[in-house]
Amino acid sequence: METGRFVDMIHRKRDGLVLEAEEIRGMIQKYTAGEIPDYQMSAMLMAVYFQGMTDEELTTFTLAMRDSGDVVDLSAIPGIKVDKHSTGGVGDKTTLIVAPIVAACGVPVAKMSGRGLGFTGGTLDKLESIPGFRVELAQEEFFRAICDNGISVIGQTGNLAPADKLLYALRDVTGTVNSIPLIASSIMSKKLAAGSDKILLDVTTGSGAFIKDIDGSRELAHRMVAIGKGAGKETAAMITSMEEPLGYAIGNSMEVKEAVETLQGKGPEDLKTVCLALAGMMLSLGKNISYDEGVLEAKQALDTGRAYEKLKEMTICQGGDVRYIENPELFESAEITGSVVAAEDGYLAAMNTEGIGVTAGLLGAGRETKESTIDFGAGIYMKKKLGDEVKKGDVIAELFTSEDTRLQRAKEYMQGCITICREKPEVPKLIVDIIR
Amino acid sequence: METGRFVDMIHRKRDGLVLEAEEIRGMIQKYTAGEIPDYQMSAMLMAVYFQGMTDEELTTFTLAMRDSGDVVDLSAIPGIKVDKHSTGGVGDKTTLIVAPIVAACGVPVAKMSGRGLGFTGGTLDKLESIPGFRVELAQEEFFRAICDNGISVIGQTGNLAPADKLLYALRDVTGTVNSIPLIASSIMSKKLAAGSDKILLDVTTGSGAFIKDIDGSRELAHRMVAIGKGAGKETAAMITSMEEPLGYAIGNSMEVKEAVETLQGKGPEDLKTVCLALAGMMLSLGKNISYDEGVLEAKQALDTGRAYEKLKEMTICQGGDVRYIENPELFESAEITGSVVAAEDGYLAAMNTEGIGVTAGLLGAGRETKESTIDFGAGIYMKKKLGDEVKKGDVIAELFTSEDTRLQRAKEYMQGCITICREKPEVPKLIVDIIR
Repeated sequence: METGRFVDMIHRKRDGLVLEAEEIRGMIQKYTAGEIPDYQMSAMLMAVYFQGMTDEELTTFTLAMRDSGDVVDLSAIPGIKVDKHSTGGVGDKTTLIVAPIVAACGVPVAKMSGRGLGFTGGTLDKLESIPGFRVELAQEEFFRAICDNGISVIGQTGNLAPADKLLYALRDVTGTVNSIPLIASSIMSKKLAAGSDKILLDVTTGSGAFIKDIDGSRELAHRMVAIGKGAGKETAAMITSMEEPLGYAIGNSMEVKEAVETLQGKGPEDLKTVCLALAGMMLSLGKNISYDEGVLEAKQALDTGRAYEKLKEMTICQGGDVRYIENPELFESAEITGSVVAAEDGYLAAMNTEGIGVTAGLLGAGRETKESTIDFGAGIYMKKKLGDEVKKGDVIAELFTSEDTRLQRAKEYMQGCITICREKPEVPKLIVDIIR
Repeated sequence: METGRFVDMIHRKRDGLVLEAEEIRGMIQKYTAGEIPDYQMSAMLMAVYFQGMTDEELTTFTLAMRDSGDVVDLSAIPGIKVDKHSTGGVGDKTTLIVAPIVAACGVPVAKMSGRGLGFTGGTLDKLESIPGFRVELAQEEFFRAICDNGISVIGQTGNLAPADKLLYALRDVTGTVNSIPLIASSIMSKKLAAGSDKILLDVTTGSGAFIKDIDGSRELAHRMVAIGKGAGKETAAMITSMEEPLGYAIGNSMEVKEAVETLQGKGPEDLKTVCLALAGMMLSLGKNISYDEGVLEAKQALDTGRAYEKLKEMTICQGGDVRYIENPELFESAEITGSVVAAEDGYLAAMNTEGIGVTAGLLGAGRETKESTIDFGAGIYMKKKLGDEVKKGDVIAELFTSEDTRLQRAKEYMQGCITICREKPEVPKLIVDIIR
């Protein structure tokens, strides 16, 4: 493909025409090889932003990105492997709970997590807040762990979807991040490269989600499910609310503590509900049973403590100090504390949940640059949930940090994220929709 | 402005918001200085393609491009200088006729023409087909010519609107050429830099024009007039039909010959009509008289031979062999000839005029690359106009070339540009609209 030809392709996408599979594949190959310049690709991405892509175009585009690098082969692990991916949220520690539940029910969990930037750490960072826990296993060790315990969660290995990395970096600086087809293909290219047999997508919606409006979230879910199907992999999506943080804890070791407590039967209701739904759906996919049957099995695994035992097994297998799982009180919060209080009487009516995530970052719970280190003990512990009645001066959240200078700014920032009303508000549904 | 800031600007344009004057100026300055990368600018241009620009944004954008390079100062020349610019056509030799008419009526013509690529040569190439004619005059010589004769047409000097050059090159390879605001600003940045006091735009429309539909042509005209006004220069636009070549001759020396004949009172009716309209409007602008008065003065200058004398004066002044103007038969056509004939009985109903331009290029009348030389004698002489009745086998056009191998392909190509119908068609209006 010469430059002259690629500009014709831009013209056609700009004019709303459908691109052919062969040329979409050629575009990704040539772009990855450096044969299409960034300035043409960014024009193409902006044209896609405005004109979109059909499901067929999008599947071809996604598969071409998947095929730009390694595709993990999990076939040596017996059973149907189901992957779960969340589009991101605040206080989202579901993987730490859902993975052990699903493994306890006999569906193997071979999960590779990314690290990434964010207000709070990713699953890998949370696991690393368990002293000794190793997330970097060699492939052989990873496979053996799954064969032995049915579960392992490690850092991403290999060169998965390098075309997506290149395109994402370009989108980031050219105003083309917020395109639903481009988001869908970015996520799915990595999930399809990660080698599982089936995929569950947790598409968050609301003030703490990447896509905040329900229509957009629904569209993203539909597009990703269509790509999964187009790629021949059964894919389901669950739309879950992120109008407030999930559970009470935000921050790495605080979240692990809350996850352990949930597996011990002492966790927050909302977190438990979402985890059982996600686990139920993963079991439905992995065992070819109904969703309701899946939720029932998940509940039994949780209630009987089998899921809790799985987390201990995984921790031991990956070198973590299991005493932290047995006594989650060992997880220490950072020493400097402050609190955000209600400015008036009323009901907690709305939260800028993304803003609460930003607050956790200000306290030191996240990474500002790739090189930053995370303060595992920093974070927020919510004392109130949406719909709760509050009196002026009631503590809404406790803040934890290791650096004095961070506290004041975080407190002020978070104060602006809280809305109190006179009227008792309606509390948003946790599981908004299931698409499969 | 950092990269981080510019991506916010892309976001806002993408979302249909209005950009501020200061940031638009910053964008052009930084882009010209190489501080905004092409991949961000191309995303911005595609966002503009979809979201457009307000008249205010567009004027700021255009003035910033004008100010990226030299701005010609014509103030040493007394009188109101009026520039004319055509958006391009086939057989368009109007400048060779209009400029002498206007100068003969006492409005100074200080015209700088670009060379550019094209199917047929530009005004400079046409003038250079007069043996000895020099289009490269020093500024002093240019000014003296205008003071002495009231007229000079030369090649563009100085570094006019370099930002436009850079942006145009980027638009060319990123699918963002066909954006009416971007076309309008590209033309107007150069016209405003060329230093005249007032501007007349000949916006062509139809099958031989750059913008083929009347709505698009009208929009382009309105946008350019608004930019001119925003820049404080009286600007008018005349929308003229390019549904067929203007006059009969297409090709450099053939067009000069036809222009001279028109000034001698023997030219084609359509060419004469358009030239009187354009000259009338230039005189209206230059003398602050009505359009009708302008057309009347133009007609007198043409009919009395004063305009013809002006062309001779200019030719002599710029070193051209005036015998060619006195005896236009001296212009020789290329030796190898062929003809395109009617394939059936009927009426000449439509022409792909751009295709006829391409045919002239195939015969050697244009430049394929910047380095190509033009065959001044190559071209097409139309024998029929739209609406003419034809019998099968009647000659519609004669083709002229110096290379045997070019003839056959050109003939075949041009045959496909001619549509003959049974019913007598309506002939399109020449002057479609005037906007000021």
